[in-house]
Amino acid sequence: MLASAASLLNIQTVILDVGEDAPAKQVFSSSQHIDGSFKDQQKIAELASRVDVLTVEIEHVDVDALDAVKKSHPNVEIHPAPETIRIIQDKFLQKEHLGKHSTPLGEFMSVDSAPESIKHATEKLGLPLMLKSRTQAYDGRGNFLLHSLSDVDKAIAALGSGSRPLYAEKFLPFTKELAVMVVRSVSGEVASYPVVETVHKDNICHLVFAPLRTADAGLCRRAEEIARNAVRTFEGAGVFGVEMFLLEDGTITINEIAPRPHNSGHYTIEACETSQYSNHLRSILSLPIGSTSLKVPASVMLNLIGVSDSMDPIKDVCRKALEIPGAAVHLYGKKDCRKGRKMGHITLVAPSDAELRDRLRPLLQILPTSSSSLDEQEKGRQKEVTLYAPVQPSPTHSHPQPLISIIMGSDSDLPTMLPASQILTRFSIPYELTIVSAHRTPARLYPFAQNAAARGVKVIIAGAGGAAHLPGMVAAITGLPVVGVPVRSSTALDGVDSLYSIVQMPRGIPVATVAINNSTNAALLAIRILSTSDPRLLTRMEDYMKEMEREVSTKIERIESGGWGNYEVKKH
Amino acid sequence: MLASAASLLNIQTVILDVGEDAPAKQVFSSSQHIDGSFKDQQKIAELASRVDVLTVEIEHVDVDALDAVKKSHPNVEIHPAPETIRIIQDKFLQKEHLGKHSTPLGEFMSVDSAPESIKHATEKLGLPLMLKSRTQAYDGRGNFLLHSLSDVDKAIAALGSGSRPLYAEKFLPFTKELAVMVVRSVSGEVASYPVVETVHKDNICHLVFAPLRTADAGLCRRAEEIARNAVRTFEGAGVFGVEMFLLEDGTITINEIAPRPHNSGHYTIEACETSQYSNHLRSILSLPIGSTSLKVPASVMLNLIGVSDSMDPIKDVCRKALEIPGAAVHLYGKKDCRKGRKMGHITLVAPSDAELRDRLRPLLQILPTSSSSLDEQEKGRQKEVTLYAPVQPSPTHSHPQPLISIIMGSDSDLPTMLPASQILTRFSIPYELTIVSAHRTPARLYPFAQNAAARGVKVIIAGAGGAAHLPGMVAAITGLPVVGVPVRSSTALDGVDSLYSIVQMPRGIPVATVAINNSTNAALLAIRILSTSDPRLLTRMEDYMKEMEREVSTKIERIESGGWGNYEVKKH
Repeated sequence: MLASAASLLNIQTVILDVGEDAPAKQVFSSSQHIDGSFKDQQKIAELASRVDVLTVEIEHVDVDALDAVKKSHPNVEIHPAPETIRIIQDKFLQKEHLGKHSTPLGEFMSVDSAPESIKHATEKLGLPLMLKSRTQAYDGRGNFLLHSLSDVDKAIAALGSGSRPLYAEKFLPFTKELAVMVVRSVSGEVASYPVVETVHKDNICHLVFAPLRTADAGLCRRAEEIARNAVRTFEGAGVFGVEMFLLEDGTITINEIAPRPHNSGHYTIEACETSQYSNHLRSILSLPIGSTSLKVPASVMLNLIGVSDSMDPIKDVCRKALEIPGAAVHLYGKKDCRKGRKMGHITLVAPSDAELRDRLRPLLQILPTSSSSLDEQEKGRQKEVTLYAPVQPSPTHSHPQPLISIIMGSDSDLPTMLPASQILTRFSIPYELTIVSAHRTPARLYPFAQNAAARGVKVIIAGAGGAAHLPGMVAAITGLPVVGVPVRSSTALDGVDSLYSIVQMPRGIPVATVAINNSTNAALLAIRILSTSDPRLLTRMEDYMKEMEREVSTKIERIESGGWGNYEVKKH
Repeated sequence: MLASAASLLNIQTVILDVGEDAPAKQVFSSSQHIDGSFKDQQKIAELASRVDVLTVEIEHVDVDALDAVKKSHPNVEIHPAPETIRIIQDKFLQKEHLGKHSTPLGEFMSVDSAPESIKHATEKLGLPLMLKSRTQAYDGRGNFLLHSLSDVDKAIAALGSGSRPLYAEKFLPFTKELAVMVVRSVSGEVASYPVVETVHKDNICHLVFAPLRTADAGLCRRAEEIARNAVRTFEGAGVFGVEMFLLEDGTITINEIAPRPHNSGHYTIEACETSQYSNHLRSILSLPIGSTSLKVPASVMLNLIGVSDSMDPIKDVCRKALEIPGAAVHLYGKKDCRKGRKMGHITLVAPSDAELRDRLRPLLQILPTSSSSLDEQEKGRQKEVTLYAPVQPSPTHSHPQPLISIIMGSDSDLPTMLPASQILTRFSIPYELTIVSAHRTPARLYPFAQNAAARGVKVIIAGAGGAAHLPGMVAAITGLPVVGVPVRSSTALDGVDSLYSIVQMPRGIPVATVAINNSTNAALLAIRILSTSDPRLLTRMEDYMKEMEREVSTKIERIESGGWGNYEVKKH
């Protein structure tokens, strides 16, 4: 993917990898490519002799070789700096480095690959305890979650029987895994991509949702800041993948950092104004960093991971993806499929979170699993669907990815507000419906309004009667458009009280007010608002208006043909 | 670009082109590529012997060779059908074919490369007369616009001195050039991409704007239908570029068709859910056709055309593009730069038409021109900017690419509506402002409302007083969200008349009503509506709200510190 980005800028690329048909060598034809390992000092020196700038796509390179290149080829720039790679490739050094720079981290400590040392660690950090190899670890290899001291020998065996240095991490019961790609320029400026939610399966990156949806409006800002600050502490240019844990109490800790384009940034190719690959190139070549903004409303990346030696199940998923709007298939051209090997990925983009899940669902439904039992496979897939792309609930229950939120001050407003829900159902707009009372649940009102946008809600429809404060109060807290429905609840003032309460908002805080009791129009207005970002909705709104026109035409004909004497007026 | 799309699907590609480092051979490494001309029968046969499916990226191939392949390699599928290429590569046959299938065309006729024949054509089709080579013509080569009979000899010389067959076309004074990419599946189903506006310079494609903006709401539907119908008449699968003229009276005629991915479809790589290249592959391989929807609000493609043997001026444009958000540079890796040669292109995407032009402007300002006079170069660039990316007008004049339209029933409403325009200026939202009276200009009302969306307007703010029909009537004609401002114009009812007229719309047609005379809130509401598709606006709205909070805090402090006895209330 990096070679592909380079070819668009006519930048000549020389690739060091084993074999003549390594993926990168396939997409960028050159007689200059080098056949060899990225741990081979001599091959690295050979590579350095052919280039102006040297970069890595994997951190497990031979750093001594890079240091040697620095001396033997002083004019070759190396990004990120060898020292950065040296720190990052040893996860314990990485944590020490980050800790020194006040980065939020879970507790960790050095351990020897010996039962007593590990036992000591459990006394300090508790059980379960995460044991990790300090080096050569990725995709969950080199991790062992120790649940009980009786498994210590098993852990040592699994982690290389003492041949590899270890360290221990306090196990953090995270609620979500987050990641932020950060671009660092040669001069040390940093720019960050949006926060994404990553989902791992069997310790390997499985799904990446962008952008992150959360009920905590400040979370993304906090996560991006932590990621940018962490990357600022390293030397050299390039893209860095910062993986983080979100804990129950909203705290964010850094899990680990990759000094290169990262799996959690693959979505940027289709979903952002500049891909992580283009930005990695730009940064190491001292070119301007490109915009990291999303250019689509929602996106998800699904890794295609081998479950056996056969590519067939992966090809089936790709074939299905070709039927899905917004799906882009990336196969890497790796020669052999193997269990646990990343053979490619699929990125989906969509106009909304709900539609994204609709597009993801058929892929999860045929995802290959390594289980041999058909029953187990089916169960596994069903679980995936339930977790990440649940089927739409019945029309009278809230959708998990609502675009519109219908709220009302009291359950007595429900009959007035139901027509709104019927219109949204008719237009297949995902929505939620609940009660938020400005006067009886003021403490619920504030976070509800404040976090609505971060949850992906685009429009709030609020119905209220009498001293109808709800729409205006919600509009005072959120920046989203709020549609107010004056409910005729008091007989004394016939709804005019509600209307005035809602429409006569002070300068600065608008509420889009519709007619008294007319929640139908509130929903239609909300759809018109959504149509400004989804042209298909505009077409459907125009169709709806033509349908109304046809209905009136039919009535005209009935009056014409039957005469007005016998004409019966139907009530709504 | 086709090879690139193929590599993502692990589809092996063999390329026939002259040279070892033709662009396509660079991006898809293979020892199988063939060095030779696409007019070389033997090389075409050699290519056929190595593949399952054979396609073309240029229509000037040797069709006899393709016919021979059909016989010698009956299992090799050829797309599009050789017969289709044969018809299309002879522009006169192409026109005859399209005419037979009732495609809208300008008048044309066969001519000999002789003065009398051409003179006869001018008598039938008038002057100026478009003379064209029937074959081997592209990028304006092989076209001669004959203005006067005295130039006939010049025309014949320019068009090959009788060595190439010619035909004549009635010159059509078009107002715009349009193009639609159409995908045709093996089974003959067709899908079309959005209509784009193409701009040619020196007869070569220069700019492509997607989607087309127009003041004629039905135009896109008509153009797509004509393009799809035309492509339906050809045999074989693949992507077709349909170039069209839009005449003054709204008539569309087909100019010509390309049986392959087309320059007017390059924007699809970054701007659509599936690129034209991916869809060309899918169609010729009998795979499902991908979604042709735009995934961004606005996009433009700028060709990078050589002006001399030097690549330097093109590199300058690319360097500038790297500074621009949403710009993707595509350099083709062609060995030699030449005047008139397409060396690459830049695609820009943006959240709005106005922002797209802002991003395009700096590129047009440094575009290389072939003029040797610095003064001429500067003039040429200035003209480009004026035509395609004019600088924003002064804040009290309408923007040429408005997102919001402020209208009012009477000039007497202007003082009430001006605060709306000030808010939009403060938020740098492109808008227009004009008078549309429901009662005094009903004939203007209808097309204004009907065409607003096609012009790119997203929200209409309508102010009206008294019997205030304007907002509701506009909402009854367009599917866009309409914000209504009740203007307190009659002293009798103090604006309540206007409020009721605007807010009490019947079920089916909503108007988002704000407080009486509160056009500030109308503008803020319109911005909130736009923020549903542009998250940056949501952040700015939240900042605006925090600023209001701060202002009140300052007042609180003033009351605290100075006491309320001396507190002076400032009026708005």
